[in-house]
Amino acid sequence: MSDFTEQYSLEGIKPVDASFLGAVEARLLSLTKPPGSLGLLEEIATRLALIEKTTNPQITKKQIFTLAGDHGVTDEGVSAYPKVVTSQMVLNFLSGGAAINVLARHAGAKVTVVDMGVDYDFGTNPGLVNAKIGWGTANFTKGPAMSRQEAVKAIKVGMNLVKKAAGEGVSLIGVGEMGIGNTTSASAILASFAGIPPAKVVGRGTGVDEEGLQRKAKAVETALRVNRPDPNDPLDVLSKVGGFEIAGMTGIFLGAAKEGIPVIADGFISTSAALLAIKLAPAAEDYLFLSHLSEEKGHAAMVELFNTRPLLNLSLRLGEGTGAALAMGLVEASAKIMTEMATFSEAGVSEKE
Amino acid sequence: MSDFTEQYSLEGIKPVDASFLGAVEARLLSLTKPPGSLGLLEEIATRLALIEKTTNPQITKKQIFTLAGDHGVTDEGVSAYPKVVTSQMVLNFLSGGAAINVLARHAGAKVTVVDMGVDYDFGTNPGLVNAKIGWGTANFTKGPAMSRQEAVKAIKVGMNLVKKAAGEGVSLIGVGEMGIGNTTSASAILASFAGIPPAKVVGRGTGVDEEGLQRKAKAVETALRVNRPDPNDPLDVLSKVGGFEIAGMTGIFLGAAKEGIPVIADGFISTSAALLAIKLAPAAEDYLFLSHLSEEKGHAAMVELFNTRPLLNLSLRLGEGTGAALAMGLVEASAKIMTEMATFSEAGVSEKE
Repeated sequence: MSDFTEQYSLEGIKPVDASFLGAVEARLLSLTKPPGSLGLLEEIATRLALIEKTTNPQITKKQIFTLAGDHGVTDEGVSAYPKVVTSQMVLNFLSGGAAINVLARHAGAKVTVVDMGVDYDFGTNPGLVNAKIGWGTANFTKGPAMSRQEAVKAIKVGMNLVKKAAGEGVSLIGVGEMGIGNTTSASAILASFAGIPPAKVVGRGTGVDEEGLQRKAKAVETALRVNRPDPNDPLDVLSKVGGFEIAGMTGIFLGAAKEGIPVIADGFISTSAALLAIKLAPAAEDYLFLSHLSEEKGHAAMVELFNTRPLLNLSLRLGEGTGAALAMGLVEASAKIMTEMATFSEAGVSEKE
Repeated sequence: MSDFTEQYSLEGIKPVDASFLGAVEARLLSLTKPPGSLGLLEEIATRLALIEKTTNPQITKKQIFTLAGDHGVTDEGVSAYPKVVTSQMVLNFLSGGAAINVLARHAGAKVTVVDMGVDYDFGTNPGLVNAKIGWGTANFTKGPAMSRQEAVKAIKVGMNLVKKAAGEGVSLIGVGEMGIGNTTSASAILASFAGIPPAKVVGRGTGVDEEGLQRKAKAVETALRVNRPDPNDPLDVLSKVGGFEIAGMTGIFLGAAKEGIPVIADGFISTSAALLAIKLAPAAEDYLFLSHLSEEKGHAAMVELFNTRPLLNLSLRLGEGTGAALAMGLVEASAKIMTEMATFSEAGVSEKE
C-alpha cells in the first residue's frame, strides 16, 4: 500500500476546503429564488464550487471515458451475452452507434474508448486508446483475476488519462465501461468490502436467466473462497476479483481527485471502481458524483457505502457511461444556476418577508 | 360543460393509437443494448413515438410557457413573499436573469412569458405576451376567484398559444408559472378533486413559516366551504379556487393534446393545471409528461391522480417551468436513443444467447 501511495502521490489527493462553504452559501442565497428551492441542483452547485474553489464554477470541456476489458469468469456461464460482444461493442462505440455515443453527443461530451484488456486484436485503430494490460482477466473462480502489478499498471493508465485530459482543459469527466462478465466482478468487489453474501449482491446484469443468476452467485462465492480478498487492502480486492477496465476506472477516479476535476460515476461497475478509489484515498469522494441508482440489484447496497447519493433514478442498467452522460446535463445546469442567475439586488426583486 | 367542449373542440383530443406499439417495441429491441436496459428512457421514447406515430420521433423546437398571475388569497397571509414579487419576477424573466431563463437556455428552449393576470401594468413590453384576464383573482375565501367566463377565456388563451407554437414547428412544450399565492390555489384544486383535508394538501410553498402554513390550511378550508367547488365540473373548480395562470396552463395542456405535441408539466401548480386538463379531456394524458416530483408537500398525492409518473426527483420547489426545462433534456435524449442508435445487424453485434 505505502509503496503504491508514494509512487502515485495519492497523498496529493486532498479534501476540498470546507472553509469556503460560507461564501458559496451566501452566493446561493443572493439569487432570485426562494432559499433552497432548487434542491439537488443547489447541492451539486455547492460541491462544484468547493471543488473549483470559486463561486463561479465553470463546466467547459466534458469527456467520458469508456473503458473495455474481458473477464475470464465468463467461462462460468454468468452472462446473457457471449464474450465476443465486448469487442463488437467497442467497434460499435468507435463507429458512433452505441447508446453512449448518442447520449454523449446529447450532453456535448467527447467519448474516449480505451482498450484496457479486451480479448481481441483491434490492430491499429486511431479512435481507440490501446492500453491493453492483457487479453482478458483470468477466471477468478480458479485464482486471482490479475497480478497486483497488473492492477497497479492499470490504475496508472487511468490516472494518466486524466492527467492528459486536465492538460487539455477538461472540466468534467464521466466514467463508463464495457465488459461482458463485469457485473460478476463488481458483485465480488461489493461482497468483499460490504461482507454481503454473494446471493444478495448478484443481479441480472445484461439480462441473465434464473439459472445463470445462480451460476453467477456461485461464481462469486467460489471467487471469495478461493482468493480470500482482504477488504483492508483495496489492491488485493481489485487484483483478485476485479477487471482491467475496473482498475483503469479506479485510476480515473483517483486521477480526477488529484487534478481537482469533478468526476461522475456511471452504474454498478463504474461505482465499484469508485468504491475502490475511495478505499485507496478517502478524500477522492469529495470530487465524485454518483450519476444514478442502477436497476442492477447490488447497486442500492453499494451506494450505501458512499456519503454522496445518486442524482438520478431512471431504472438504467446499461453501463458504457450512459448514466454519467445523462447526469452531465444536470451537473452543468447546476453550475449555470450559480453563475448565470441574477441576484435580488441586480433584479430589484423583494426578498422574503 | 358541453358548450365548452363544442366551442373548443375538446372532442378533437384523441388517445394515441396503441396499435402502433408493436412497431415501436420492435424498433427498441433491434438497438444495440440489452432489451429494456435504458429503463425510463425507453418508456419516454415509446410514448413520444406513439404521440408522433413514427419510430423516428423528432424533438426540434422546444418552447417553455411561463404564465403569470396574481392571487387575491394573498390577503390571507399565505405566502412568504409579498404579492409584488409576481410582477418583479416577470420583469426578471424578461431580462433573462431568473432560474427558468438559465435552465431553458441550457435545454435549448425558448421561454415565452405570458401575463395572464398580474396586478401590475407592464405597459408595452415586446418580450411579454399580454393576455391579462384581470388584475389578479378575487380572494377565494370570500367567493369565486373568477367567473366561469373568465376561466373559459383564459383556457382559450392557452389553447391559442399552442396553436401558434404548432404553426411555428414547436415539437416539445414545457409549462411553468409565477404567481405569489398560487400554491394555495393548487392546494385547493387538489383538495377539491381528491377529497383530501386542507391541512394535508398545503405545504410551505416558497417557504412560509408554521403560522403561515396554518393560515394557508385555513384559507383552503374556508375557500371550499364558501365556494363548494364541484369535482364533477372541472370548470367550476377552476373558476372558484383556481388562478388566471392556472387556467391558461390548463389551456396549454389541452391545446398540446389537440395539436399532438408532447407537453411537460412542471411542479405542483403546473400539475394542478394538468389535472384540470385531464378532468376536462382524459385523453390529454397521453400527451403529458410529469417532469419531476416536487418537494411541495401536496405534489405526491397529486401525481397519484395520474397514470404517468414523474421523470425526476430533485427536491425542486421553485416553479417557473424549471423542472420542465430539466426534463426536456431527458425527453430529447430518449428520442435520440430511438433515432440515432445502431441496430444489432447494422453494427454486427451478437444478440442475446
